[in-house]
Amino acid sequence: MVGYGVDIGGTFCKLGLFREDGTLVENWQIPSRREDLGAEIISDVAASICENMRKHGFTGKEVAGIAVGVPGPVTKDGVVGRVTNIGWERKDVAGELKELTGIPVKVANDANVAALGELKYGRGKGKDSLVLLTLGTGVGGGIVLDGRIVYGANGGAGEIGHCKVNPKEQAVCGCGKRGCLEQYASATGMVRMAHAFLEESEEESSLRNQSFSAKEIVEAAKHGDAVANRVVQKAGDYLGLALANVGATLDPEILVIGGGVSAAGDILLDAVRESYKTQTFHACEKTPIELAVLGNQAGIYGCMAMIF
Amino acid sequence: MVGYGVDIGGTFCKLGLFREDGTLVENWQIPSRREDLGAEIISDVAASICENMRKHGFTGKEVAGIAVGVPGPVTKDGVVGRVTNIGWERKDVAGELKELTGIPVKVANDANVAALGELKYGRGKGKDSLVLLTLGTGVGGGIVLDGRIVYGANGGAGEIGHCKVNPKEQAVCGCGKRGCLEQYASATGMVRMAHAFLEESEEESSLRNQSFSAKEIVEAAKHGDAVANRVVQKAGDYLGLALANVGATLDPEILVIGGGVSAAGDILLDAVRESYKTQTFHACEKTPIELAVLGNQAGIYGCMAMIF
Repeated sequence: MVGYGVDIGGTFCKLGLFREDGTLVENWQIPSRREDLGAEIISDVAASICENMRKHGFTGKEVAGIAVGVPGPVTKDGVVGRVTNIGWERKDVAGELKELTGIPVKVANDANVAALGELKYGRGKGKDSLVLLTLGTGVGGGIVLDGRIVYGANGGAGEIGHCKVNPKEQAVCGCGKRGCLEQYASATGMVRMAHAFLEESEEESSLRNQSFSAKEIVEAAKHGDAVANRVVQKAGDYLGLALANVGATLDPEILVIGGGVSAAGDILLDAVRESYKTQTFHACEKTPIELAVLGNQAGIYGCMAMIF
Repeated sequence: MVGYGVDIGGTFCKLGLFREDGTLVENWQIPSRREDLGAEIISDVAASICENMRKHGFTGKEVAGIAVGVPGPVTKDGVVGRVTNIGWERKDVAGELKELTGIPVKVANDANVAALGELKYGRGKGKDSLVLLTLGTGVGGGIVLDGRIVYGANGGAGEIGHCKVNPKEQAVCGCGKRGCLEQYASATGMVRMAHAFLEESEEESSLRNQSFSAKEIVEAAKHGDAVANRVVQKAGDYLGLALANVGATLDPEILVIGGGVSAAGDILLDAVRESYKTQTFHACEKTPIELAVLGNQAGIYGCMAMIF
């Protein structure tokens, strides 16, 4: 038997064909057409899967299922709520895709799917519970307990990026509230903090008077730039605080950090671990905090784990 | 079939005998002998259960099981970690009690057991997921997802009382860290806050120049005392913040508040709901926050749910 994994993103949809034994046979991507509030995305995905099935001569019986990760809230019955970066308002992704392909479909939030991928095939291999934070443009989060994704009553479980870490924050987060982890530990948040730090002082910095990305902040920090270093430390402090609260709440076996910003590596991880240890409940002080290993493919691997 | 529930506390152990259909036949309590690091507690409980069995003429075959709630971390396999207010250090409660009674034993953290009780027989009846906060001397927490208690890898799940809500706090919590919810939303925390507020200002207050309990603070607040009201508001604010983060993390169907301090009722609940709504993730803004209904017996009812 084979299965298809689909990781729907705001720019691309990543697709993967895999075998029951866990082998990824091939993977590819198609653009996410966002026009008309993303009306064509599901039919594009269906067409791409059907084309792949024809190529391999699959009639449908060989395909155990399609699993889909979506960048928005998904309830356990597969109904997708508001997905701001695509334009969807409540969409029956499972129903539509099954209608178009004739294959059973499972849907979950993309960060939750990635967490399942890291648990089954990545950093959490052999463990039962894992919490993943993905530091990209925003901060995504996924929770797997007893080997199963936690969906939440409204599909909102795992939205750790919107846990409040600074009740005094005046700037508004993309979600409309203030003081979210995402405002500090995302790429966007780090750039924002760096600009604020540069404005607050006259301190010399390689970042001064130019535009820069989160990646460049991390590079500057690694080269000893004090302003850049403060940005990374603060992101790490807040990540440690949010994870400390996750520890006291769920006490998972392992905490994993992924996404582009996590490429900062030890300089970030050291700050996170220190902040976590000093703030979490004593019973979970020793919980490992590690980097994700599946990178961009965590979603596709998580899809595989949802089907087989 | 019948079952026994045991809620082990620092002063008393509450016991209950119930039938499979959910009827509580009788309940009673015995003192918790804390001498010798609580060495006799388990044998006292065993003796009390055996005596009750003799009274009813049970031979053992009629007893489906014993379930025990313990005020400390408990892993899924029933091993109890450090229980500070009794004096235990890692105790095999399930093993010892089974040895002494010959009956199968299940063990879980007392707040987690109470959460299960509220879900199955109390405020959460008919729902699948619930998070309970118990506001007493300390702040306990319990989490039930998909109808099952979340234990945590080190038995530390549900310790929401030790989530950090104020990173700037200088005073140290009973757990050894700073800024825990318990430092504000427990009876002890409210008394501490009231003393601090009275010291900070010359404001007139019925609490001034006398000793008072959390209950008296709540009474004073209800009678319009401004200082007492600020204490209740602040406790409610921090509770709302902690629950907002629980919402963004787990998105349960209902959030429930119990314990002695919750008798404050609407004056506290209004503050909690306002703080929650303004701070949680939008998908779970409408999650109900309600008072527990089982009171002191939530633990015993939770034990029943663990067995049947």
